[in-house]
Amino acid sequence: MTDDGFHVYDTTLRDGAQQEGLNLSVADKLAIARHLDGLGVGFIEGGWPGANPKDTEFFRRAQTELDLRHAQLAAFGATRRAGVKAADDPLVAALRESGAPVVTLVAKSHDRHVELALRTTLEENLAMIRDTVSHLRAEGRRVFLDAEHFFDGYRSNRAYALEVLRTAAEAGADVVALCDTNGGMLPDELAEVVHEATATGARIGIHCHDDTGCAVANTLAAVRAGATHVQGCANGYGERSGNANLFTVVANLQLKRGFELVPPQALADMTRIAHAITEVTNVTPNSHQPYVGASAFAHKAGLHASAIKVDPNLYQHIDPAMVGNDMRMLVSDMAGRASVELKGRELGYQLTGEQSRELVERVKDLESRGHTFEAADASFELLLRDTVAGERKRYFTVESWRVIVERRPVVDPLTGAATFEVVSEATVKLQAKGERIVATGEGNGPVNALDKAVRLALEKLYPELAAVQLIDFKVRILEGTHGTGAITRVLITSSDSTGDWATVGVDENIIEASWQALEQAVTYGLLRAGHHA
Amino acid sequence: MTDDGFHVYDTTLRDGAQQEGLNLSVADKLAIARHLDGLGVGFIEGGWPGANPKDTEFFRRAQTELDLRHAQLAAFGATRRAGVKAADDPLVAALRESGAPVVTLVAKSHDRHVELALRTTLEENLAMIRDTVSHLRAEGRRVFLDAEHFFDGYRSNRAYALEVLRTAAEAGADVVALCDTNGGMLPDELAEVVHEATATGARIGIHCHDDTGCAVANTLAAVRAGATHVQGCANGYGERSGNANLFTVVANLQLKRGFELVPPQALADMTRIAHAITEVTNVTPNSHQPYVGASAFAHKAGLHASAIKVDPNLYQHIDPAMVGNDMRMLVSDMAGRASVELKGRELGYQLTGEQSRELVERVKDLESRGHTFEAADASFELLLRDTVAGERKRYFTVESWRVIVERRPVVDPLTGAATFEVVSEATVKLQAKGERIVATGEGNGPVNALDKAVRLALEKLYPELAAVQLIDFKVRILEGTHGTGAITRVLITSSDSTGDWATVGVDENIIEASWQALEQAVTYGLLRAGHHA
Repeated sequence: MTDDGFHVYDTTLRDGAQQEGLNLSVADKLAIARHLDGLGVGFIEGGWPGANPKDTEFFRRAQTELDLRHAQLAAFGATRRAGVKAADDPLVAALRESGAPVVTLVAKSHDRHVELALRTTLEENLAMIRDTVSHLRAEGRRVFLDAEHFFDGYRSNRAYALEVLRTAAEAGADVVALCDTNGGMLPDELAEVVHEATATGARIGIHCHDDTGCAVANTLAAVRAGATHVQGCANGYGERSGNANLFTVVANLQLKRGFELVPPQALADMTRIAHAITEVTNVTPNSHQPYVGASAFAHKAGLHASAIKVDPNLYQHIDPAMVGNDMRMLVSDMAGRASVELKGRELGYQLTGEQSRELVERVKDLESRGHTFEAADASFELLLRDTVAGERKRYFTVESWRVIVERRPVVDPLTGAATFEVVSEATVKLQAKGERIVATGEGNGPVNALDKAVRLALEKLYPELAAVQLIDFKVRILEGTHGTGAITRVLITSSDSTGDWATVGVDENIIEASWQALEQAVTYGLLRAGHHA
Repeated sequence: MTDDGFHVYDTTLRDGAQQEGLNLSVADKLAIARHLDGLGVGFIEGGWPGANPKDTEFFRRAQTELDLRHAQLAAFGATRRAGVKAADDPLVAALRESGAPVVTLVAKSHDRHVELALRTTLEENLAMIRDTVSHLRAEGRRVFLDAEHFFDGYRSNRAYALEVLRTAAEAGADVVALCDTNGGMLPDELAEVVHEATATGARIGIHCHDDTGCAVANTLAAVRAGATHVQGCANGYGERSGNANLFTVVANLQLKRGFELVPPQALADMTRIAHAITEVTNVTPNSHQPYVGASAFAHKAGLHASAIKVDPNLYQHIDPAMVGNDMRMLVSDMAGRASVELKGRELGYQLTGEQSRELVERVKDLESRGHTFEAADASFELLLRDTVAGERKRYFTVESWRVIVERRPVVDPLTGAATFEVVSEATVKLQAKGERIVATGEGNGPVNALDKAVRLALEKLYPELAAVQLIDFKVRILEGTHGTGAITRVLITSSDSTGDWATVGVDENIIEASWQALEQAVTYGLLRAGHHA
């Protein structure tokens, strides 16, 4: 056994990629590996070379394209098939030839799985482990073993499950990772089993899934019971309810249990890294994710805003800067002066007492009519600028607009069958920089058509608008009891090359509400682009 | 102390509503309370009457509109202000007058919070607790105490934190709930403190937040250490990283620790209830949510497909049916043949095997394109009738429609000031009973205008439509990454004098989606009125 400190082992590229809807290209995998290395993890499991052509390609390209500073690559694969020698098994050869210094072998440790899925004997399964581990060790690879379905196996046949660990360790595996493959364990029971497993003398690792909502706690419980190797995935990606969230595990161990797992300056980059990985996976970031989520340190201040001002640490469990996050004050319907001032300062404005009072009044009035500034930072900042400057700078003034949506019959020219089409068209009339402009846009819906029309109208005068995109559109009906007469709130998120912002519109007419949010989105985009017209 | 078994205490309507972006109307709160009662929770915390007009209204309406079978309502509020009598404090009066049989008082248990946020002495804080608890007990209310920031308080001043618990219990509080308000605790440390707290003799409750990803595990650890009252929120809603997910907590305790918290048949309805609540909150369901998420028992079978067929229990930690979920990726609860047949029988239809198969295919196809039949029973019944009858009976056939929304300048006739107005107009051309009808309606928005136009067109031929009202309209954007190009789902609830029904429409164009739901709503209304034209 090599003792090289505590292992932080990431399996995003292999087990995390099992998440429904996640589909990573080789380039995606390389990009994620660089991010993980930047965080300072010890091992990055890249996939299963030989079993999956994409993963074979990943390991091939990694040799020239990945310049890892902290992490070592691990190739994942199975023990040899029953009845052949490890040295002759082509899948084992693919592991050997992957170029990865570490090979992580998955092995059955549950007697019923050996019989049902492998269809071999318990003895042969042990021989497969012994042979494959020794072979790869003799070839100069470091070997870890993933004991699949270990906890269920321990329940089914305790002696055999422990024998699997012993066999692997004796054959030269550095780590035997106990896998809660079905994710059904709770921390106390899991810790007892981990404690038993340490008695085999093997170095124990832990691999958890979140099916009971306890993946992180199970991992911590295993560490307390003697595990010195933790496996998990970026952002908790994984099959079913996901794998243990490696970011949460690392932050908990380092900030609350005194482990030194990654450099503090890398930890302070964790929020950025977590979000950068979501850009690669194209999975919407979970704003509630512990430590790194956009809401993780967001407070609806209300009552406590004044106390937060005096001592923010009374209201947060760690200093968010340690993980690169920020405390955010949400402006909500309990908005008090203190929270408005805090928010103003966060945005870089020093408000006078008079301005704060006025702003609070306007926020309260608008929120009572259904606006929500906690989810629309850009709308709040525009309101704040109005309050400070007396009136908002306007890049354009809208005279009128009109939207037409029509469903009409059409005849299919090929078949002659009668069908229908729905078309949307919007015309905007506005004035900007002394010009009067009329523009018409077509879209796949009324708001898309309005968005196109206003861009068409402004694009010559403000070419920067080309970089501004509408990336999210949310609609909420605020009172569900008056049918279509209810108030509609629209939230629009827009982005340019450097970030994104949200705006809100409220009206009984959904198109007018959308227009309000759209107009502010464009105004704020121009403000960001540096126009002070 | 009243010992009435183990408490499952839901705080979705109060603490869960603190979640960023969550905004519940009184009607939403009543709907969620009904769902929670259906699950069999013991207590539903409805909000803070007196401090928040919406919550005052909730408790007022609850008295006549909520017919709870399992749960008791709890009103949340603070201990009296410093220096006044509880009997004279208007906020305490609001709690007393809320009609709720249980009052949950939040109290400071952290010495620094008493000084900084309450700005009073440690002694006066104890007096406030003693006085408010006794007063409410004397008024016949059952009292629970939420000891805010308890774990941080215990670290800061252990003796004082424990004294708060003792004071409350001695004054007559049935439960003192230890709140990990900042959410920073890990299970082992938390369990030690809970164990200490039980030594005060008070009945201990637990209230956790998920800032370390351990809210569920912390709750379980507290229960093991002696807590007999657990607080949490539906779907883990809550501020920052959320509150303990009450559904996960209940499923873990009941299925893995042998507690009998809710009736087994209610537990088997948990997946449906969890999703029904997301329809009310309009928060996208978390498909990875333990037990109830759409992916929670979804397998990328691959290698193990045959073994899964032989013994699925080797690959799942519980039988998903126990929480109303399913191992296979079903598009919805309804998309299995058995459930379709069941639903058909419920509606009074005997489906042949062939019809069931065809209906399942159509439901799967439509749900894969964003329809949801669980929340749209009338749309499902229309689809079922189509399948049985070969083609749906049509009361009217639409030729075309057109909606115009216009924002245009107007001059106030009195002041001469320039302002604007937004007008919506819809024209519908249709045929019914051999007549061709063209009708135009005006409304306060495009859907309202369409609704008026179609009624105007049909009212002479079908006077029963006068009794049909559109009472709710919900919009959900199904993919948030393509801006206004995303797919829109519209759910419409309609009513007549004898009941209500819901219909669904899906399209990239929000007006077309609304139209689909509207057309079905009217068709179903006529069907109910007995037209078999």
